[in-house]
Amino acid sequence: MTSTVSDVTSTPTAGAIATAAVWSGVTEGFSVDQVALPDLSAGEVLVRTELATICGSDLHTINGDRSTPLPTVLGHEAVGHIVATGGAVQDADGDSLAVGDRITWTIGTACGSCRRCLRGVPQKCLTVRKYGHEAMDDHWQLNGGFGSHVHLIAGTGLVRVPEVVTAPAAAPANCATATVTCAARRVELTADDVVVVLGCGMLGLTAVAYARDRGVEQVIASDVDPARRALALEFGATVACAPEDLAKTTAEHGADVIFELSGSSRAVQSALEVVDLGGRVALVGSVSPAPEVGFEPSGFVKNLTTVVGSHNYRVDDLAEAIDFLGRTSYQGQLAGLVSEPQPLADIVEAVALANTGATPRVAIHTH
Amino acid sequence: MTSTVSDVTSTPTAGAIATAAVWSGVTEGFSVDQVALPDLSAGEVLVRTELATICGSDLHTINGDRSTPLPTVLGHEAVGHIVATGGAVQDADGDSLAVGDRITWTIGTACGSCRRCLRGVPQKCLTVRKYGHEAMDDHWQLNGGFGSHVHLIAGTGLVRVPEVVTAPAAAPANCATATVTCAARRVELTADDVVVVLGCGMLGLTAVAYARDRGVEQVIASDVDPARRALALEFGATVACAPEDLAKTTAEHGADVIFELSGSSRAVQSALEVVDLGGRVALVGSVSPAPEVGFEPSGFVKNLTTVVGSHNYRVDDLAEAIDFLGRTSYQGQLAGLVSEPQPLADIVEAVALANTGATPRVAIHTH
Repeated sequence: MTSTVSDVTSTPTAGAIATAAVWSGVTEGFSVDQVALPDLSAGEVLVRTELATICGSDLHTINGDRSTPLPTVLGHEAVGHIVATGGAVQDADGDSLAVGDRITWTIGTACGSCRRCLRGVPQKCLTVRKYGHEAMDDHWQLNGGFGSHVHLIAGTGLVRVPEVVTAPAAAPANCATATVTCAARRVELTADDVVVVLGCGMLGLTAVAYARDRGVEQVIASDVDPARRALALEFGATVACAPEDLAKTTAEHGADVIFELSGSSRAVQSALEVVDLGGRVALVGSVSPAPEVGFEPSGFVKNLTTVVGSHNYRVDDLAEAIDFLGRTSYQGQLAGLVSEPQPLADIVEAVALANTGATPRVAIHTH
Repeated sequence: MTSTVSDVTSTPTAGAIATAAVWSGVTEGFSVDQVALPDLSAGEVLVRTELATICGSDLHTINGDRSTPLPTVLGHEAVGHIVATGGAVQDADGDSLAVGDRITWTIGTACGSCRRCLRGVPQKCLTVRKYGHEAMDDHWQLNGGFGSHVHLIAGTGLVRVPEVVTAPAAAPANCATATVTCAARRVELTADDVVVVLGCGMLGLTAVAYARDRGVEQVIASDVDPARRALALEFGATVACAPEDLAKTTAEHGADVIFELSGSSRAVQSALEVVDLGGRVALVGSVSPAPEVGFEPSGFVKNLTTVVGSHNYRVDDLAEAIDFLGRTSYQGQLAGLVSEPQPLADIVEAVALANTGATPRVAIHTH
């Protein structure tokens, strides 16, 4: 329902206008448009974007590798301040939120009552609507992060972001960081585990720092790129090796928990081969179709191997991600993976910069 | 150390003799021999065997498909009464055990202090010694179930067996039943899961009954054999189907937790294909080398699949197995999977009967 005066805590200034980079497909590209601020329904929130970042999946869409309903506002990694709410709204802990609060939010909505929500996988809610992934409609225009404002609809998980977490650290949290904390929860990471991280991009470096934050003493990082391996050591890895040296390195140090974040089928295969007896493998990086991986069942059984596929996250994983960023000594380094903010008006240039891969994330300053 | 008078609670009658079916390999076969009762060291237990059963893995050894140190007393599935202890001994709950107590025991020892024991996989203890799998030596002669007595060495997990659990139900508990309860623990079975059981032999029928005991309402059983499918329905399965109908059946009913107990690579493959989003697959049946199984990583990741290899069990799983047998309304049917006891002297005929596969377990009466 559309909110009435009585249940709206605050409303945007009448006639106020937002700015958004509207994506109309590979042929038509972006146009930076003026968009009217929404009339908020109950449980909805309007956020003024503080900072957004360009995720690899945004690039997949922009580069034509993935289709999306059109027109849309891309971008799902963002942080901002509440400027209006449709009645009372709460954060993930059930505490009331108010205008001025600094928050981030889950990439998708969850109804809380379907079979998937009830079975602990709300990220696959049967009626999920995802930011940066849906067509703009009459009610929901500001449905992505690449705009001055984002319209958060009911069912979105909301998490406070304390000032101690800087905007460049916070913006990727609702994608990269929460994906890592979710995978760590699903494989039941403990401080006693020897951890192996395959792939040292944004997720891999986050996983290395997160494992150290959780008390893990031995973290082996592996990547094909020597520069990324060197970076992993700066993020807390205790050993870094090329993929061809992984078997030797894990034989020496162990491999209780492996985070596969590269998306390479060869890396998935190697994870199954080197995991210790009783160890757990989190498969996370594989999000596009790739060559099959094989295993011999009796070896898998007698090794007591566990393999867990992990995709997206729950709102409690996002809360843990923000908490982690606030407490880790690596926050500055994680924020350093994000570029200087580029103006929203220069979205095309910002995307081109992101496509160079020179920095793991390019930031968009939306005002 | 060898026990002294002061720390031995009781000793066997001096000069008393046990009888055991000693296995000397495929060529020499069995001889039913007289064996002196042991001098018990501290923490050891002498059991008078009540009933033993022939496991499929015993048959593998006898049929020459698996090598074992020789000579040996085969058999690991058994139940018996304590006739002597080397000082104080406790059961898995830490309660004192005494002469006359009815117990079963873990298939292998666990030191409790090595890396694997400390990491929750004591069944893979670095110094494990397994009943029915070791060469007889000067101290450890009665090291398998196919004898009038079994010599339980320190580090063996001991579990009381109440009288309500009949001997035919109890004897296979320390192999088949505990393997099932361990797999269920490892995949975190809940009453809300739709359960699929692949393979309806001893383990599969136990899994069906155990799932129902744990409150599961929907259990789909699959087997190539129509007679086994019919049996699964008698053990509590709500639906039974041939493997070629598995995809259709699970599409209709769901597949949250799949127990793969057949050991067939095709069944392993089908488990990966039909498991529901967020579901868990326990691989248990594959204990001999078999063709590789393949999966496409991004499908695995986006389905949030979990696959857990499970082999043997912990002592708490054995305690749960005995508890289950005492409380389940299917105890009589599970006991019915075990043949009438065959005399130990007729071990060769008993093995021949077991090799026919006419009954899932052949029992040996050892006195």
